[in-house]
Amino acid sequence: MKFNSTLESIKSYEAGKPIELVVREYGINKEDIVKLASNENPFGCSPKVKDAVRGIIDNMSLYPDDSMVKLKTALAKKYEIAANELIIGAGSDQVIEFAIHAKAHNGASILMNSVTFAMYEIYSKQVGAKIIRTASREHNMEEFYALYQEHNPSIIFLCTPNNPTGDAIDAEAMLAFIEKIDSDTLVIVDGAYMEYARFKDPSKAVEPRDLIAKFGNVLFLGTFSKAYGLGGMRVGYGIAQASIIEALYKVRPPFNITTLSLEAASIALEDEVFVQECITDNFEQMKRYEAFAQSKKIAIIDSYTNFVTLSLPESKNSSKIAQELLKKGMIIRDLSSYGLNAIRVTIGTSIQNDRFFELTEPLL
Amino acid sequence: MKFNSTLESIKSYEAGKPIELVVREYGINKEDIVKLASNENPFGCSPKVKDAVRGIIDNMSLYPDDSMVKLKTALAKKYEIAANELIIGAGSDQVIEFAIHAKAHNGASILMNSVTFAMYEIYSKQVGAKIIRTASREHNMEEFYALYQEHNPSIIFLCTPNNPTGDAIDAEAMLAFIEKIDSDTLVIVDGAYMEYARFKDPSKAVEPRDLIAKFGNVLFLGTFSKAYGLGGMRVGYGIAQASIIEALYKVRPPFNITTLSLEAASIALEDEVFVQECITDNFEQMKRYEAFAQSKKIAIIDSYTNFVTLSLPESKNSSKIAQELLKKGMIIRDLSSYGLNAIRVTIGTSIQNDRFFELTEPLL
Repeated sequence: MKFNSTLESIKSYEAGKPIELVVREYGINKEDIVKLASNENPFGCSPKVKDAVRGIIDNMSLYPDDSMVKLKTALAKKYEIAANELIIGAGSDQVIEFAIHAKAHNGASILMNSVTFAMYEIYSKQVGAKIIRTASREHNMEEFYALYQEHNPSIIFLCTPNNPTGDAIDAEAMLAFIEKIDSDTLVIVDGAYMEYARFKDPSKAVEPRDLIAKFGNVLFLGTFSKAYGLGGMRVGYGIAQASIIEALYKVRPPFNITTLSLEAASIALEDEVFVQECITDNFEQMKRYEAFAQSKKIAIIDSYTNFVTLSLPESKNSSKIAQELLKKGMIIRDLSSYGLNAIRVTIGTSIQNDRFFELTEPLL
Repeated sequence: MKFNSTLESIKSYEAGKPIELVVREYGINKEDIVKLASNENPFGCSPKVKDAVRGIIDNMSLYPDDSMVKLKTALAKKYEIAANELIIGAGSDQVIEFAIHAKAHNGASILMNSVTFAMYEIYSKQVGAKIIRTASREHNMEEFYALYQEHNPSIIFLCTPNNPTGDAIDAEAMLAFIEKIDSDTLVIVDGAYMEYARFKDPSKAVEPRDLIAKFGNVLFLGTFSKAYGLGGMRVGYGIAQASIIEALYKVRPPFNITTLSLEAASIALEDEVFVQECITDNFEQMKRYEAFAQSKKIAIIDSYTNFVTLSLPESKNSSKIAQELLKKGMIIRDLSSYGLNAIRVTIGTSIQNDRFFELTEPLL
């Protein structure tokens, strides 16, 4: 059977290895495995969220409220925006998919950073769009502008803080860039890790409210998968002017969020104290990674997220090191598929980080 | 901002009104509302599923096992197929989306029944495909064949039992039809309600194992949303030969099922006794709807599902009756948007059905 020719170039997303798989493949006890590969919150989610979800277990048989009024009201309040400036996705991934399906057609150009979140490319290829990348590892607004002028892309992706490198774009430089972009080009600002950046450095903080007040062509993305500790529940969101949201709604499947996920995300917004505590701890622990890297004379990218990226010297091979660690039950992310000789490590709990240093010490 | 022209023709899916919305709109107490609109299992899901999900609440922060080995192993065992003949979707809806995105391009034809599941059309329009429909209300294999010959469609949808009418295709007639279809046309057999048909009448039962053993161009769809009582958890699946599954995987987003949903569906398969009890009760209660229709001299479509469709006489208006019932807290589905002067009612518990008869009695 023949399928659409666009499928031929698609390579599937490489996910962080789940713990179950390591148990099966290496015969390691589940308790002995530490996963620092998917930037999950090591403290999980707020206990209030767990209580709330337990309380509606009987509703698993009921389709979710597809208007999502509870979650949208809570998010609108948090961001001081209107409910019709919001769309909810099964992870912010799905909002990326909506945007590409709504805006980019076969042959359109989509501009993104050299190294950035892998799903931009995968969804772009699904619609047959042409991918344009900058050359620098960090987002360089001059390079972006030159390529924008050359290719007139339908969509520009700005990932800040950037995954999988952890660096963030200076907010003012980004705004100055967007000012120069034609109103028919959709600029997607992916802020999946923005809670961390906002905490660490106000000059990196992007406020979706300000963005959409100023620009009719910007879509901001946020998620509950990282700081809110709900990676397993698949809830993210897009914020934009109502006309963009309306278009994205046309390609949204109904019931795209589970009944339990809607409740979990709604309640998570009621416990911002928990989230801030987790973020505080994250940056405390990050100092240990910085010290470790320094002691090993390894370059560490200044991170505004809950992970760190260690760039390895030529004498070390990131795939080999990731493999060695895996055998010992430590799951981290090898970035060789991104063209980097580097490993990405999620900041874990103090004990998980101890284990990382202990296992990695002899390898570097 | 301009979006893809394919969006212009898309009308969003009209979902059954969630209970929360009726509470808000009509000020009715939540306890007094009965929802028989979305074909949810009125007995919910197995208690074993609830226990299992409660037991892994701490895992909400962890991304799901994207290989879905536990669920795929259980489903493969149930259907006596291989794991690589299976793909899991966020509801069988999402597998429909995968199939259309993988197979149909802008301008392709997609053939479906006159009245059938609304999402086929919505996803088809997203890719700019042309929709071809038969004329008869029931699936008529001769009509399908004539239109197949005329239009050479990329995809043919056969929904059996059919939603929203409840009737089912004779399995032998369907197989004879598929025999005549070119191997490059994908035939999608949507069996979302197949558990009910299999129970009621073996001549309507389609076994996915037999289908895919015989045909390299068939995709069977199943779901946990109906008989398994997990409508809120968004889990469905597609079964086909491995080459089709491989193509669908290319357009599947990673982590398309929540961590809790994967567990819920896996455990649901361990309690088939619960499911069979629910189905037995369903058909016991259905007799009451048949008797009610007869007493009112209203046509009822012979149903192989967990809902009944009452075709109203010209003197009655389905939209009006649905509206009257809604004001009293009874949510059913008006089928006027499908071009039918009919209402669709989910078979509820004995008490819910009592309430339906009590409220509907004076209106018909």
